[in-house]
Amino acid sequence: MPTIVAVDIGGTQMRAAVYTQDKIEPIRQKKIPTLASKPGGIDRLFQVIEDVWPKNDSVLAIGLGSPGPLDPHTGYLLAPPNNPEWHNFPLAPKVAEHFGVKAFLDNDANLAGLGEYRYGAGKGHRNVLYITVSTGIGAGVVIEDRLLQGHHGLAAELGHCIVDPNGPPCSCGFNGHLEAFSSGPAIVKYVLGELESGTKSVLKRDASMTARDVAEAAKAGDELAIRAYQRAGEYLGIGTASFLHAFDPSIVIFGGGVSQVGGLLFDAFHVSLKQRVFHPRYLEGLVITTAKLGDNAGLLGARALAEMKADVKTS
Amino acid sequence: MPTIVAVDIGGTQMRAAVYTQDKIEPIRQKKIPTLASKPGGIDRLFQVIEDVWPKNDSVLAIGLGSPGPLDPHTGYLLAPPNNPEWHNFPLAPKVAEHFGVKAFLDNDANLAGLGEYRYGAGKGHRNVLYITVSTGIGAGVVIEDRLLQGHHGLAAELGHCIVDPNGPPCSCGFNGHLEAFSSGPAIVKYVLGELESGTKSVLKRDASMTARDVAEAAKAGDELAIRAYQRAGEYLGIGTASFLHAFDPSIVIFGGGVSQVGGLLFDAFHVSLKQRVFHPRYLEGLVITTAKLGDNAGLLGARALAEMKADVKTS
Repeated sequence: MPTIVAVDIGGTQMRAAVYTQDKIEPIRQKKIPTLASKPGGIDRLFQVIEDVWPKNDSVLAIGLGSPGPLDPHTGYLLAPPNNPEWHNFPLAPKVAEHFGVKAFLDNDANLAGLGEYRYGAGKGHRNVLYITVSTGIGAGVVIEDRLLQGHHGLAAELGHCIVDPNGPPCSCGFNGHLEAFSSGPAIVKYVLGELESGTKSVLKRDASMTARDVAEAAKAGDELAIRAYQRAGEYLGIGTASFLHAFDPSIVIFGGGVSQVGGLLFDAFHVSLKQRVFHPRYLEGLVITTAKLGDNAGLLGARALAEMKADVKTS
Repeated sequence: MPTIVAVDIGGTQMRAAVYTQDKIEPIRQKKIPTLASKPGGIDRLFQVIEDVWPKNDSVLAIGLGSPGPLDPHTGYLLAPPNNPEWHNFPLAPKVAEHFGVKAFLDNDANLAGLGEYRYGAGKGHRNVLYITVSTGIGAGVVIEDRLLQGHHGLAAELGHCIVDPNGPPCSCGFNGHLEAFSSGPAIVKYVLGELESGTKSVLKRDASMTARDVAEAAKAGDELAIRAYQRAGEYLGIGTASFLHAFDPSIVIFGGGVSQVGGLLFDAFHVSLKQRVFHPRYLEGLVITTAKLGDNAGLLGARALAEMKADVKTS
């Protein structure tokens, strides 16, 4: 049976899997350390693909997911953090040449969104907005069954949309992005700033504080910690209102570690969203939910990309 | 030769035109007053279409443009301002039934964007962001040669994206929208507010002030008037930066009366945009220009909608 090979190149692990078209589970998969800062990354990638390569079945296409920035149209990585070897690197062309099979590349957030659309929480929807809230804020947008990629392949960078031009600096260096308000590090930074101003809390000024620490303090009733998540949720609602006005999806799916805290973030999010959406029709029938595929979203997204680009019919 | 009938239902005029597929100019056109608040609108619409209806050629489809809110998927008008007769009104279905030809509806800004994409400044581009800056701010977005409509048909309402959550109220009643900073009335409102605070200007506190009055004062060197346009341009740059991050187009086209003032608005816009775009690649080869089709954008957009939906091949 014809198969699809998918690879998810994460910061710590490379995962490869091979899929037949009739099942969501891979027929074989393998993971190895990425070791991004060590030489030989392309050989490790070839090796992990070879390790899952089907012996008796043909491979129709290879889908590759990686952190950006990258160009999905050419398959080049542009400047992945922590990996100088792969700057301006023709990843998909090299994989295609090595294996003699078409290879397609896109970034992890786009592919997680595509995976959720095709196999997860978004199944059956044609207009999907996926937002991952984690160390950063990324997004994947599907419009009428097609992944939004953009002219330079840099569309759907919704974590870097400006929600307050006078807001705090983002990890990217620019001010007032959604990511600078609602990501895990943004929540921590807000708490640290308030502690510095003398606000009382069970949390102590500690550079190793994580968003999880803040969540635990909030669940124990700490007012500052609660407020930090409420503020993140409020801005997430502001950003999402604008994204509804821009894309008008039928479903919004939240992935990423920070989105797993539940009401702590999402109670304020829902209040804010309803206050900010300028026409009630956007909310008619709108599903707002969390991701279903967990760690497999990226891998299944890379599979979906390969299937869609190679125009494979699946069940 | 098979033809397309296009209608642009404006606030003051209804214009109908009939096009062959080989020419940008209509073979016949007519305009009549809309008289939105007077009964009989549908009969006037039927009449103006009949007046241009080709005697010897077939009509493949009818394209209809109207101010929103409306549902392009069903062809219903939802709640057009100043026209109680057309609330929740099946405009496209009625036209289709009356003429026995498929009819398609979308809003004026989407269609102006589609018109510019197909026949105007955006010709040859596949990813187009059209923004009209006028009494309101509207937009039309084309992604890989398809008009972005959204699940409820309410996508691309970019004038109602939030650029500052603590900003002034928009015409729609919600706060901090791009339209509340950079539309004609927003420019006037800012000037009136500053005059009230005692800022000196050649402009006088006068409820009938227009954005054009402010532009004339600015061109004569009035500092307040200049600052009002600079502020509008700055926020237009902030909003557009977010739209680039969201859609990553290859061209941004500005239409609408306010966008005709040139450097008064766009000098500050360009500075702001460059300060706010978070990755230089978005600007690589990006064309930023003004609309080419003028008053015909809506009509040509209605034509393009009908052609695309009816899957007509054109030159």
